[in-house]
Amino acid sequence: MSTSIDFYFDFSSPYGYLASEKVEAMAARHGRSVDWHPVLLGIIFKQTGAAPLTMIPLKGDYSRRDMPRSARFHGVSDFRMPSKFPIPSQAPARIVLWQKQRDAALAATVVHALYRAFFVDDVDISMPENAVAVAAKCGVDAAAARAAIDDPAVKDALRQANDEAIARGVFGSPFIIVDGEPFWGIDRFDQVERWLATGGW
Amino acid sequence: MSTSIDFYFDFSSPYGYLASEKVEAMAARHGRSVDWHPVLLGIIFKQTGAAPLTMIPLKGDYSRRDMPRSARFHGVSDFRMPSKFPIPSQAPARIVLWQKQRDAALAATVVHALYRAFFVDDVDISMPENAVAVAAKCGVDAAAARAAIDDPAVKDALRQANDEAIARGVFGSPFIIVDGEPFWGIDRFDQVERWLATGGW
Repeated sequence: MSTSIDFYFDFSSPYGYLASEKVEAMAARHGRSVDWHPVLLGIIFKQTGAAPLTMIPLKGDYSRRDMPRSARFHGVSDFRMPSKFPIPSQAPARIVLWQKQRDAALAATVVHALYRAFFVDDVDISMPENAVAVAAKCGVDAAAARAAIDDPAVKDALRQANDEAIARGVFGSPFIIVDGEPFWGIDRFDQVERWLATGGW
Repeated sequence: MSTSIDFYFDFSSPYGYLASEKVEAMAARHGRSVDWHPVLLGIIFKQTGAAPLTMIPLKGDYSRRDMPRSARFHGVSDFRMPSKFPIPSQAPARIVLWQKQRDAALAATVVHALYRAFFVDDVDISMPENAVAVAAKCGVDAAAARAAIDDPAVKDALRQANDEAIARGVFGSPFIIVDGEPFWGIDRFDQVERWLATGGW
């Protein structure tokens, strides 16, 4: 099959970043491409009562240990927790959503650049000017990207994309849907890969 | 090394059951044994604000799909969601803790029998008479096991064991500690196995 797999992610999600570095190669091994869906976990968490991992007692300490350990385990050598975390991710999400409607391939490049800016270079991509600067280095029109962040139509599109994600059952990041089958977390990548290879079990 | 690995679990945890079916073989591949630690997630969740998975919006629907899928993925062919779920797990936890102080090998046998009674045969092991009947089939003294469930000393021992688990950072089930390194979830078994093989990375 040549259809894409749906990859939902929040730019403030460490496991989303790790997964973003691995998902295209996995999809390609099975003749698939990746459809990138930025979402806002802050909104989604209102449905589930969840909170940012690092802020939860016990789980927070564990996650701060598990994140770099999992990065090394999955061979993502460049990872460090940003000095400001978590961040609101509206600005980078809007840039990607807007760019995706114009050039999906460039939007994918921008996803990687923004994620790496945050989780490798410690750039606060919640600030519009920072997010725009990262996108501009990829070849995106800086002035247009800056305008998109405040464009009511783009804001609406992100709200709608978030609602659609919730309607599909998305509650975390990364979240992958393959031919209707949902998988939460980079720790389901082994199941995603088998699903792509076999169509289920 | 010949030291054991610590396996923390709640009898009401589906992923704990799946992991319980796999952990001894993994430990044995690396010359290790398993130290079984029943805990009460209901108490632990008060620290973290967590709730039983199946009761959480969105996450609940996902987990009901992921649990049997993960069972098949991990080759645990016998699994079905109990008709009553979740259950309080004091009775089976106390039997195991009490039996462990007398015969740790028999206690391990009882762990498997209780878990399978709940997740294969749909026996409500939260009821003392049911939990005792399962243990008795393994060769445990039924009258003594029944008395242990209401023994203040055994109750205290479980409370203390739970406090110690929290002090070690345990917040979920299954939770494995290998030489001081914590791993949460059956989806960290690949990391546990590599840790056992290499001592870290």
